Amino acid sequence: MAEFMDVHHGMKGITSEQLQEAHRADLAVQGEEGVRFKQAWADPRSGEVYCLSEAPSAEAVMRVHERAGHPADEIHPVPLTA
Amino acid sequence: MAEFMDVHHGMKGITSEQLQEAHRADLAVQGEEGVRFKQAWADPRSGEVYCLSEAPSAEAVMRVHERAGHPADEIHPVPLTA
Repeated sequence: MAEFMDVHHGMKGITSEQLQEAHRADLAVQGEEGVRFKQAWADPRSGEVYCLSEAPSAEAVMRVHERAGHPADEIHPVPLTA
Repeated sequence: MAEFMDVHHGMKGITSEQLQEAHRADLAVQGEEGVRFKQAWADPRSGEVYCLSEAPSAEAVMRVHERAGHPADEIHPVPLTA
């Protein structure tokens, strides 16, 4: 398992309810892909959304987000933390 | 206090030691700006670095990173979390 940070662009105006709903949709399918979403952060003004996960691969992260209806624009493995 | 995610581009090849050193440099001056850096994640392959902080303003986050010698390329308030 590795840690990943994925980024969604263009989510300007996202509400707290929409972020919660999107996160719930990820959680509902993540187990089937071996992924664990840990946290998500959103900036409604710029439309950037960041999701931190543990997963077997970037592809698995993408499959969860795709199945949940919101494919990520970037997925980065983040093997280094401080 | 609000939460911020800032992003540094172009850090390709960053090592764990370099990330730790950069983080320590932030911690050394953050108190003077009222900022608390919570975590940093780095992808040495793409060169993306993400830093999560609590701060009074985006400008305060930038001042810490500038004083530590590594200004951020993007700073986003992230008032929504899930």
